[in-house]
Amino acid sequence: MPPFPFTAIVAQEEMKRALLIAAVDPSVGGVLIFGDRGTGKSTAVRALAALLPKIRAVAGCPYSCSPDSPADACPHCARGRGKSHQIPVPVVDLPLGATEDRVVGALDLERALTRGEKAFEPGLLARANRGFLYIDEANLLEDHLVDLLLDVAASGVNTVEREGLSLRHPARFVLVGSGNPEEGELRPQLLDRFGLACEVTTPTDIATRIEVVRRRDAYERDGEGFCAGQAKAERALQKTILSARERLGGVGVPDAVLESAARLCLALGTDGLRGELTLMRTARALAALDGAETVTVAHLRQVAPSALRHRLRRNPLDESGSTARVARAVEEVLGGA
Amino acid sequence: MPPFPFTAIVAQEEMKRALLIAAVDPSVGGVLIFGDRGTGKSTAVRALAALLPKIRAVAGCPYSCSPDSPADACPHCARGRGKSHQIPVPVVDLPLGATEDRVVGALDLERALTRGEKAFEPGLLARANRGFLYIDEANLLEDHLVDLLLDVAASGVNTVEREGLSLRHPARFVLVGSGNPEEGELRPQLLDRFGLACEVTTPTDIATRIEVVRRRDAYERDGEGFCAGQAKAERALQKTILSARERLGGVGVPDAVLESAARLCLALGTDGLRGELTLMRTARALAALDGAETVTVAHLRQVAPSALRHRLRRNPLDESGSTARVARAVEEVLGGA
Amino acid sequence: MPPFPFTAIVAQEEMKRALLIAAVDPSVGGVLIFGDRGTGKSTAVRALAALLPKIRAVAGCPYSCSPDSPADACPHCARGRGKSHQIPVPVVDLPLGATEDRVVGALDLERALTRGEKAFEPGLLARANRGFLYIDEANLLEDHLVDLLLDVAASGVNTVEREGLSLRHPARFVLVGSGNPEEGELRPQLLDRFGLACEVTTPTDIATRIEVVRRRDAYERDGEGFCAGQAKAERALQKTILSARERLGGVGVPDAVLESAARLCLALGTDGLRGELTLMRTARALAALDGAETVTVAHLRQVAPSALRHRLRRNPLDESGSTARVARAVEEVLGGA
Amino acid sequence: MPPFPFTAIVAQEEMKRALLIAAVDPSVGGVLIFGDRGTGKSTAVRALAALLPKIRAVAGCPYSCSPDSPADACPHCARGRGKSHQIPVPVVDLPLGATEDRVVGALDLERALTRGEKAFEPGLLARANRGFLYIDEANLLEDHLVDLLLDVAASGVNTVEREGLSLRHPARFVLVGSGNPEEGELRPQLLDRFGLACEVTTPTDIATRIEVVRRRDAYERDGEGFCAGQAKAERALQKTILSARERLGGVGVPDAVLESAARLCLALGTDGLRGELTLMRTARALAALDGAETVTVAHLRQVAPSALRHRLRRNPLDESGSTARVARAVEEVLGGA
Amino acid sequence: MPPFPFTAIVAQEEMKRALLIAAVDPSVGGVLIFGDRGTGKSTAVRALAALLPKIRAVAGCPYSCSPDSPADACPHCARGRGKSHQIPVPVVDLPLGATEDRVVGALDLERALTRGEKAFEPGLLARANRGFLYIDEANLLEDHLVDLLLDVAASGVNTVEREGLSLRHPARFVLVGSGNPEEGELRPQLLDRFGLACEVTTPTDIATRIEVVRRRDAYERDGEGFCAGQAKAERALQKTILSARERLGGVGVPDAVLESAARLCLALGTDGLRGELTLMRTARALAALDGAETVTVAHLRQVAPSALRHRLRRNPLDESGSTARVARAVEEVLGGA
Amino acid sequence: MPPFPFTAIVAQEEMKRALLIAAVDPSVGGVLIFGDRGTGKSTAVRALAALLPKIRAVAGCPYSCSPDSPADACPHCARGRGKSHQIPVPVVDLPLGATEDRVVGALDLERALTRGEKAFEPGLLARANRGFLYIDEANLLEDHLVDLLLDVAASGVNTVEREGLSLRHPARFVLVGSGNPEEGELRPQLLDRFGLACEVTTPTDIATRIEVVRRRDAYERDGEGFCAGQAKAERALQKTILSARERLGGVGVPDAVLESAARLCLALGTDGLRGELTLMRTARALAALDGAETVTVAHLRQVAPSALRHRLRRNPLDESGSTARVARAVEEVLGGA
Repeated sequence: MPPFPFTAIVAQEEMKRALLIAAVDPSVGGVLIFGDRGTGKSTAVRALAALLPKIRAVAGCPYSCSPDSPADACPHCARGRGKSHQIPVPVVDLPLGATEDRVVGALDLERALTRGEKAFEPGLLARANRGFLYIDEANLLEDHLVDLLLDVAASGVNTVEREGLSLRHPARFVLVGSGNPEEGELRPQLLDRFGLACEVTTPTDIATRIEVVRRRDAYERDGEGFCAGQAKAERALQKTILSARERLGGVGVPDAVLESAARLCLALGTDGLRGELTLMRTARALAALDGAETVTVAHLRQVAPSALRHRLRRNPLDESGSTARVARAVEEVLGGA
Repeated sequence: MPPFPFTAIVAQEEMKRALLIAAVDPSVGGVLIFGDRGTGKSTAVRALAALLPKIRAVAGCPYSCSPDSPADACPHCARGRGKSHQIPVPVVDLPLGATEDRVVGALDLERALTRGEKAFEPGLLARANRGFLYIDEANLLEDHLVDLLLDVAASGVNTVEREGLSLRHPARFVLVGSGNPEEGELRPQLLDRFGLACEVTTPTDIATRIEVVRRRDAYERDGEGFCAGQAKAERALQKTILSARERLGGVGVPDAVLESAARLCLALGTDGLRGELTLMRTARALAALDGAETVTVAHLRQVAPSALRHRLRRNPLDESGSTARVARAVEEVLGGA
Repeated sequence: MPPFPFTAIVAQEEMKRALLIAAVDPSVGGVLIFGDRGTGKSTAVRALAALLPKIRAVAGCPYSCSPDSPADACPHCARGRGKSHQIPVPVVDLPLGATEDRVVGALDLERALTRGEKAFEPGLLARANRGFLYIDEANLLEDHLVDLLLDVAASGVNTVEREGLSLRHPARFVLVGSGNPEEGELRPQLLDRFGLACEVTTPTDIATRIEVVRRRDAYERDGEGFCAGQAKAERALQKTILSARERLGGVGVPDAVLESAARLCLALGTDGLRGELTLMRTARALAALDGAETVTVAHLRQVAPSALRHRLRRNPLDESGSTARVARAVEEVLGGA
Repeated sequence: MPPFPFTAIVAQEEMKRALLIAAVDPSVGGVLIFGDRGTGKSTAVRALAALLPKIRAVAGCPYSCSPDSPADACPHCARGRGKSHQIPVPVVDLPLGATEDRVVGALDLERALTRGEKAFEPGLLARANRGFLYIDEANLLEDHLVDLLLDVAASGVNTVEREGLSLRHPARFVLVGSGNPEEGELRPQLLDRFGLACEVTTPTDIATRIEVVRRRDAYERDGEGFCAGQAKAERALQKTILSARERLGGVGVPDAVLESAARLCLALGTDGLRGELTLMRTARALAALDGAETVTVAHLRQVAPSALRHRLRRNPLDESGSTARVARAVEEVLGGA
Repeated sequence: MPPFPFTAIVAQEEMKRALLIAAVDPSVGGVLIFGDRGTGKSTAVRALAALLPKIRAVAGCPYSCSPDSPADACPHCARGRGKSHQIPVPVVDLPLGATEDRVVGALDLERALTRGEKAFEPGLLARANRGFLYIDEANLLEDHLVDLLLDVAASGVNTVEREGLSLRHPARFVLVGSGNPEEGELRPQLLDRFGLACEVTTPTDIATRIEVVRRRDAYERDGEGFCAGQAKAERALQKTILSARERLGGVGVPDAVLESAARLCLALGTDGLRGELTLMRTARALAALDGAETVTVAHLRQVAPSALRHRLRRNPLDESGSTARVARAVEEVLGGA
Repeated sequence: MPPFPFTAIVAQEEMKRALLIAAVDPSVGGVLIFGDRGTGKSTAVRALAALLPKIRAVAGCPYSCSPDSPADACPHCARGRGKSHQIPVPVVDLPLGATEDRVVGALDLERALTRGEKAFEPGLLARANRGFLYIDEANLLEDHLVDLLLDVAASGVNTVEREGLSLRHPARFVLVGSGNPEEGELRPQLLDRFGLACEVTTPTDIATRIEVVRRRDAYERDGEGFCAGQAKAERALQKTILSARERLGGVGVPDAVLESAARLCLALGTDGLRGELTLMRTARALAALDGAETVTVAHLRQVAPSALRHRLRRNPLDESGSTARVARAVEEVLGGA
C-alpha cells in the first residue's frame, strides 16, 4: 500500500512547513516534533519522502552513493563503481531496541567467522544516506545515541571506531525526531542541536477531527484509490520543492534581516550563535519555497517559533511557555505582522 | 484435553465482547484486560482461538502463511511454496523469562556454528502470525518489549535489525495482554496503543460463583464430556463471527455517529485521534456481530468504555475512576440509553 | 542415612496435614510454609517423599516417565521406550545459586561443541517430574523464577523457549516453598498461586522442645535404629495415603458445602475464585484421608486457614493477622465447631 | 615458616574454646568470630589446624578422601582407589575476589577446549574437605555465597548444578568466619546457621599487650626457634583433643540439662530449636575436653554465650548488647556459677 | 573542504591565546575550554592544527614517529624504519561512544583469530601522537577515561596493560577539552591537571554577531574562496608560532617574576605547585610569541586567568566566580596594569 | 631521562622519612601518603627506587627471583634456573583502568587459543616483586582491589584462584598509595592495614616554593645535568640505607619502649595490636637509619604520627584532626621532646 499522501494531511501547518524547509535545505539541521500521541508524526515523514522524486544511486553500494559523488569518500565506491539505478528516497525508522551496532554498523560476524576477515557491515546510518532517519520518542533514546545521531547528521559522515574497525562513510540525512514532553526531556545540549522544533496538537474543531478520521478510514479501506485522488496535488508540491532547491543559492539575505535575527536572539538570550544561523537558513529556504528573491522580515517571523523555541534557557521569572516567549520577542523586535 | 469452551465462560460480558470484536476486525488493535487475579483471562483467549475455524497454511512455512498471500512478503515463501494444510488458529503465550531473541527471532546459532551461515531462526512473533499473542501481566514486561509487540501488532510486520540480521516477515496477530492495576502500570504512551481495554472482576453473586466453580470442576474431571455438552453453542457462535467478518465491509458509519464519537473524545480530552478511530472501528465490528446494516449511537454507547477508558489523562480535579468518567461523558454526549 | 521419618515429626500438625493433602491430590497446588528458622520444614518434605511407595519409570528417561503415560508427550519417550524400573519418588532441592538454565534445562554445550548439535539438557524441573520440588526461602528467589516454577507446577509442562531451543516436557510435581515473613515477602500475585499456606512455629512447651531435641539427637547418633523404630507407623500412614488417593474421585461435594465455601471467600474478600476452588479440592482430599464419603462443613473448617490465609487483601482497618481474620470469618460463616 | 602455635596465643579464651569444641565435634556447625581488627583471628585457625595430627588420604583424590570412607560417595574414588598417604589437615582461605566457580568448582575449560569433554574441575570446597575453611570478613561476602558455604558445611556434600555439570562430592569442613560488626552485618537468617559465635577484643592490660607484641616479634624473627619452645604444650593439647573425640560418644546428657537448655532458649526467645541442639552438642564436646562423663549445668553456663548470642531477636525494649542479655538469662535460668 | 581558518575566528581572544601558547610549548599541559554551546570550540582546534606546517613522519608507523626520534621508543620503528614523508599535524576527535579499547588500542582480533598471534592494534592515542586530541564535552566523559588521557598527555607515553598485552608507545599530543559548566563538572582532581582553562562566551555585540554569522555563511557557501582570502594572515601567524618555538629556550624568567607567581598562587590558595609551574611556562611561551627576551609581570598578568581559574578551592565566604577571584588577586599582588 | 633525585626533593620530611623506613624494613607494611594535589608523591617513590642499588635476578624469571631464594617457591624457577643478571629495583605503577586480571595475572589467552594449554600470564604483582608498587589515588580504587593488594603485600605471596588457574608466586614489594582525603576515604578496615600514613602539604613559604619550581624547571630542561649535580648526595644516602639494613637485626627494643608504645596505643584507643607492632618496627628501622644501638622514646616520638594517625576511631567528642590527637597523646604519654 502506498504511504498516506503528504498533501492529504489535515491541518498541522507548522510541522508541514518545517519538513518542507528541511527538504529544501537539509543543512538547517534535524527537525524535532513535539506533541500529543496519535497526531501522525511518523506518517508525515514517510509522506514527505514519498513525495520527493526518486534518486539515482550506484548499484550495490550500501550507502546509495550518487554516481556523481566523489568515489573515494565511500568505502564501497572507492573499490570501483558499476552501473547506477533509480531508487526511492530512503526513510529509515530507528526500530525500538535497535542496538548501537546496528545503527552505526559493526564487524561482519559471518565473514569474520567463515573467512577470518575483518569486514564492515553497514548499519542504519548507511541506509539513511541521502534520505530521512526517523526516531519515534527521541526523548526515550539514550543521550549518547541521540548525540551520535546528531553528530553524524551534522557532519554527513559516520566515523566508526569500534571492534577494531576504523572507517568513515557518507551519511547525509535529515534527522526527524518526535517527542512527548510529558515523558522526560532531552538535555538542552541536545535540544539545541536540532535545527527546528515544532509542535503538533490534537485538533479541537469537530469538523477537522471528522475529516481526519474519514480520510484515514478511506485510505485504509482503499489505499490505491485514495492516493490516486491526491496525485495531482502531490505533483504540484513536488515541483515547488524542486524549484525551491534550485533557487536557494540565489536568494539574498539583506543586512537588515541579519540584524533583526541577531536582535531577536539577543532578546531571547539564546546561547551561542546557532539560533541566528538557523534563522537565516530557515528563512532563506522558506523564501525559496515562496518564490521570493530575497528574505524579508515576514519570513523571519514565520520561522522564528520553529527555529528558536528549543533554544531558550529556563527563565524562573517568566513562567510562560517557550512558544509564547518567542512570540512576544518576535512582536517586540520585529513588530506586529 | 480440549480448552475450556468460550461459551461456557460465566459472566464477564465486557471481556467476551472485546475479544469477539477483535476476532471480527483485528485492526481495532490489541485488547488489554485489567482485573483481579484468578478471573480466567488466559482461559478466555485460548477459548476464543479454539472456537475459530482452522486456517489453511503453507506447509513448512514458519510464519504459517496463507497460500493466498503474496509469496514475496515472506522470507520462506519467497524461495518457493509447496503444499498447504489445515492448522488451528495459533495462540502463543509469551512465557515468563522469554528473551527478546526468542520473541523477535535470532541468529540460528546451530547453522552459524556448523555451517558458517547467517540464517534466521524465527521467534514467537513468527509463530503468532494469523493468531493470538497472549501476555500475562503485561504491566510486568519491560516497556521496550511491550512497545515492540505493539509496533509489530500494528504493522503486521516484524522488522529484525540485530546480530547482523536484517529481514522482515509477516506477523499479523491480535495482541491480548492482561494486567493487574495494583502491580505497577503501563506508561500512558503504551496504554493508548492498545485498541480496547476491559475490566474483569470477581463475581459477588453466590450463585454465579458456585456456577463458575462447578463448571471448572466438571471440566477438570471430564474435559471431553464437558466440551461435548457445549459443542452446539460453540458452533453457533463460530457462525456468528464468520458472518460478521463477511458483512464488516458493508456496514455504514453515518456522519452523525462520527460526530458523536468526536464529541465524546473531545469531552474526555483524549490525546490525538486514536480514540475516534477505535470507536468507529469497534462500533462497526459490533454492528456486524449484531447483524446491523449501519452503526448506531447504541453501538457507540456499548463500546465506549472499552475503547476509551485507557486514553484519559489523569484529572487531578476528578477523583472518579476512568470507567465512571467515560460513563458520565457517554451520558452527557450521547444521552441515556 | 535414611531420611528422618514423617511420623516422628513432633507437633506441627497444620504443616503435616497440608503436605498429606498435597500428596493425595497434587492439583490443590503448591504448599507454602511460613515460619521461624530451624523448624524442620525441609525435613518434613523429604520425610513425606520417603514415605510414599516407589514409582515405576521408563529406564533412561530424564523425565522419569511412567510406562503408562502417553509416549508422545515426552521428547525422550517419543523416540522409543525401553524397559522400566522402580525408583523412589523424586525430591529436588533448588540449591542456592542454581541458575535459570539449570532449573529449566538448557542447550547441551558439550554436544553443541563436539558434535555441532543443538540438543536439550534437562534441568531440575525434569528431575522433579512426578515428585516434589523444594525451595528454601522462596521469598529470596527472584520473582520471575517463582512465577516460572508456579506456572510449570500448575500446567505440569515445562515449555522451553531459549537459546534457540523450543520444546515441552512433562513436569508434574508438588511445589513446596518455605519462607520467613521477616525477610521480604512474595508479591500477592505469587502468593495467591500457591494452593496452601501453613504456619509453623517454635513450640513453647518445654516437654515438646525436649522431645524434639531428643529425637533429633537419637536420629543423628543412630539413624538406622531410629527409623526401624518408626517403621510400623510409617507403613500405616502410607496405606492411608494410598487408599485416600483411590477414594478421592468418589468423594461428593454437596451444594451446601460449595455455598459455604463461596460465602467464606466473599466474607474475606479474596480476589477471583481460586480460593473457592482450593477450598473445595482441599476439603475433598481431607475427606478422602478421613475415609469420609462426602465433604462436610467440618472439613472446610479444618482446611480454611491453609487454603485462604494467603489470599487476603491487606485491610488497613483490620490490624489482626491473616490467620486471625480467617478464623473469625470461619466462625461467622460456618458457625463454631 | 611453621604457623604460629595455638598454645602461644595470649588471652582470647572464648575464641580458643570455641575452636577446640569445633575440632572435637564438627557437627556443632561453623564458628563466627566477631571483633576488632588485628586480633589474630586467622592466625588462630591456622594454628589449630597445625596442631591436629596428619590425616591419611587417597593419593590423587582432589577431595582428600579417607581410604576408609565409602568410595562411591566420591566422583574420583568411585573410579578406583590407589594408595593413600599422610597429609596435613587442610586449611583453605577464601581469597578476596575468589569467584563462585573457584569456590564450588567448575567446568574444566582446558579439557573442554582441547578434548571436547565436560569434566569437573574441583574448587576450594573440594580442597577444604576434612579440614577448615576460613572466610575473613564474612560480612562482606555476598549473602548467597555465605548461604552456599553454610549449606555445604551443614550437609558435608557439595552439590554442583551449573554449566551443564551435575555432581556431588564430599565437603566436610569446619567453617570459620570472621566479622567486624561495624562493617555491615550478616542477615539473622545466616547468623543463626553458624553453630558458635564468639567475640574477641583488644586486650586493655599493658602486660598482656606487651606479651602479645613480644611473642609476635620473637616468632617473626625466628619462627623455628619459637615453635620449638612451644612443642611440648602443643603435643599435650593435641592429646587432649584426640581423647575428647574418642570419649564424645559416651558423654551423657541428663534430662535436667536438656530442660535447662530449653528454659534458657525460651527465656531468650530464640527462633526454632537450633539453639537447644547447639547448646547440647557444644556442652557435650566441652565435657569431653574436660574429661567429664556427663554434661553439667556448669558446662552449659560456659558455652551459652558462644552458642546463643547470635540467635537473639532484636528487642527494642532491651538496649543491652546480646552478650549481656545472654549473661542475664544464664543467671536467671541457671543460677549464679 | 579546508577547515575554517584560525585567523578568521571573530573575537574569543582568550581561547585563541591559550591554543597558541599550547602550540608553542605543549608542556604547559592540556587546554580546557568552558562555555556556551555553539561558540566554535572544535572549529578553533581544527583551525590551529591546519595552520601549523606539515611534519615529517616515518612511513607506515602507526604512531607517526619523526625520523629523528629514538627508534627504540616505538614498537613499530624498533623493528626497522623505512622512508619518511610529510603529513599534516594530526587532529583526533574522541567520537562519542568511542570505547576504551579504541582509545588505548587493543588486541588485534583479526590477527588473533586468523593467525593465533597476540598483536597490538593501535588506538586513537597512537593516531594523536605529535598532534591534538579533542574531547567535546569532556565533563560527560567518564572520570577514569579523562584521567587516563591526562596521564598519557602528561607523560607522552601510552602504557598498555590489558588483554594480555603489555607495551608502551609514544603519544605526545596537546589535549583540548571543551565543557559546559551547566552539565556536571569535572572533579577538581582532574581540573587541576589541565594546564590552561579558558572561557568562551556568546558575543553580545550585534555587529560581532552579524560578522560571525556572515563569515560562517560565506565559508560554508564557498570554502575554498573564503580560505584563499585568509591565506596571507595564516602564513604570518604560522611564522610567529615557529619563531616563538625557536626562541622559547632562550627566554629568561627573572626571580621577581617567579616570586610574583608564588605570591599570586599563595593569595589564591591553589593546592600544590602546579599553578606556579604553569604560570611560569605559560608566561614564557607568551613572551616568546611576543618576541620578548625575558618574561615580565605583564605576561604573568595576561596568562593568570587561564592558568589559575580552575585551581581555586571553593570558598564558601566568597561567592564571586573564579575568574573574578583571579582578577582580584592579580590586582592585589601584581598591581594594576 | 633519569628520575628526579630523592635528595633534591625540597621539604616533605615526614614523607621522605616514611619511605626510607620502608626501604630499610619492608615488614613495616605499606606507606599511605595523604595530601594536596601536585605535591610530588609519585616522584618521591620513583626517586627512592632509583636510589637503591641494583639487584641480582634470575634471567627470564617473570618474578625477578633472586638466585639465592628457594627455587621451589617460584613457578618459573621450580622448572630450572639459568644465569642471573643485575636489574634496577622495580617500580610498578598501577595504571588507571588496569584490570584485575592484569594486576593478579591471568590465563595466557594466546597459549590457550593456539596451543590449548592453560598457562599463567604473570601480572603487575609479579613485576613488582622485590620492588615498589605505587597506586595513585588509592581511595578511588575499588575496595576489593586495595584489599587484595594489601593481602599480597603482607604475605609476600600472590595466590591465584581464577579461570581454572591455581598457583602461588612470590610478590614481596613495598606498597605505596597516595590519597586525597577530600575525595572519598578508604574504609577504616583498609586504612589500618597500611603500616605508615604520612601527610604532605603545599609549602606556604615563598622561598621554598620558588626553590621547588626552580629545581623542577632545571630538571626538566636538563635532566642529566641536574642529576649529575645530586650524584654525591645520592650515593651518601644509599650508603646510609644499606648500613641501616645490615644493622637492623641488632637494634634492641627495651621494655620501657615497648611499654611506652602500649600506653600510647591505649591512650589513643587503637583497635588490635597492629599499632604497637608497627610502632616498634618503625622505631627500630629509624634507629638503624640513625646508627643507634637501641630504640629510644625519642624514636617513638618521631614515628608515632606516621604509625598511628590512620588507626584512630572517630571520636565524636574530639573534633580535632587525627594528627593533632596523636600529637596530644604523644605529649601526655611520652612527655615533651
